[in-house]
Amino acid sequence: MPYVNIKITREDATPDQKAALIRGVTDLLVEVLNKDPATTFVVIDEVALEDWGVGGLPVAEFRRQRLSADRLTES
Amino acid sequence: MPYVNIKITREDATPDQKAALIRGVTDLLVEVLNKDPATTFVVIDEVALEDWGVGGLPVAEFRRQRLSADRLTES
Amino acid sequence: MPYVNIKITREDATPDQKAALIRGVTDLLVEVLNKDPATTFVVIDEVALEDWGVGGLPVAEFRRQRLSADRLTES
Amino acid sequence: MPYVNIKITREDATPDQKAALIRGVTDLLVEVLNKDPATTFVVIDEVALEDWGVGGLPVAEFRRQRLSADRLTES
Amino acid sequence: MPYVNIKITREDATPDQKAALIRGVTDLLVEVLNKDPATTFVVIDEVALEDWGVGGLPVAEFRRQRLSADRLTES
Amino acid sequence: MPYVNIKITREDATPDQKAALIRGVTDLLVEVLNKDPATTFVVIDEVALEDWGVGGLPVAEFRRQRLSADRLTES
Repeated sequence: MPYVNIKITREDATPDQKAALIRGVTDLLVEVLNKDPATTFVVIDEVALEDWGVGGLPVAEFRRQRLSADRLTES
Repeated sequence: MPYVNIKITREDATPDQKAALIRGVTDLLVEVLNKDPATTFVVIDEVALEDWGVGGLPVAEFRRQRLSADRLTES
Repeated sequence: MPYVNIKITREDATPDQKAALIRGVTDLLVEVLNKDPATTFVVIDEVALEDWGVGGLPVAEFRRQRLSADRLTES
Repeated sequence: MPYVNIKITREDATPDQKAALIRGVTDLLVEVLNKDPATTFVVIDEVALEDWGVGGLPVAEFRRQRLSADRLTES
Repeated sequence: MPYVNIKITREDATPDQKAALIRGVTDLLVEVLNKDPATTFVVIDEVALEDWGVGGLPVAEFRRQRLSADRLTES
Repeated sequence: MPYVNIKITREDATPDQKAALIRGVTDLLVEVLNKDPATTFVVIDEVALEDWGVGGLPVAEFRRQRLSADRLTES
């Protein structure tokens, strides 16, 4: 009876994409560990960009800086 | 100093029902493990139906299919 | 289909006490929100004292200091 | 940059099976949401049977009762 | 590659304050454990007052009662 | 009354380092959000290397491959 929690940044994931995640994770647990889908829960959390940090920065700022760095490297 | 997280689907739980959950879980921890209520946290998360999966399906779809199956069985 | 996670410090909770927590939380969700026990999960995590902090201190140290403070107040 | 937490009962999952879960979930997030594997974390928690409850019972007891019920139904 | 989840009550934390939490936690993990910021995730959850309980009460009620108790003590 | 959960790979963090994390996170929440340390919980989870995945691989394998890639680049 697995419980899976998927946290992603909130960026326009559609209900169909969420259904695909739920289906895919459940199938995976059946294939790999022979788990029963009827007792497999999947919970998706969408997290606002300002609430997710990586590299010590909120995601939006982190992406801006990485983009700038890439441009410097390329030029 | 327990920490309890309750995840439920978002389906019109009222503030009074939430208060009853908080009270009930805290009382339970006092009774069973003699925990101090002053350092017992309860956090309730309501999860949108499209973000909760069971049986490989989002909850709403899961319920529809189970209902259809029940009707087939009964007829 | 609720999911409940109970975190407690690891201090000799017995299997019977854990079963009482599982039973109690499940009953509570039935009473308050009419949830189906068959799709109610409860997961208990026991956390080592050195891995739990409160008041800026690991729990064991927190308790020692509070005990000392209590003695000072009483004397 | 997704974060995925998979909780399963502790029942002899091998390192290879865990690697298959990590690989499968990461691939799924690439396919469905075009996420970057380099910033996709997967954390697996194995939970002792006595710490996981369903139907108001610890898992081992839940399975025993369901097995008994199945036998009654079949006979 | 640490993952840190910070849960706070929803009470007007600003984007700048959240950025300060992300920065501070990441720096701390670098200092104490020499972790790589590039693979350090911080996720902040703001929880509505009615969804957070302490002392067996929702936070708002808990504060009201403590305030009343303080006034009684002072008078 | 914040709750902070820190997940790190299990790699010989000492009790003193854990205490430093607990102290540091608590101080940060006081500074940035004026939270009360007495109701600030910090829970540290150490996760076995085989249970943590990044880049679609368990951490140990991920590090081996990155190290090999670095050597190829350098030579």
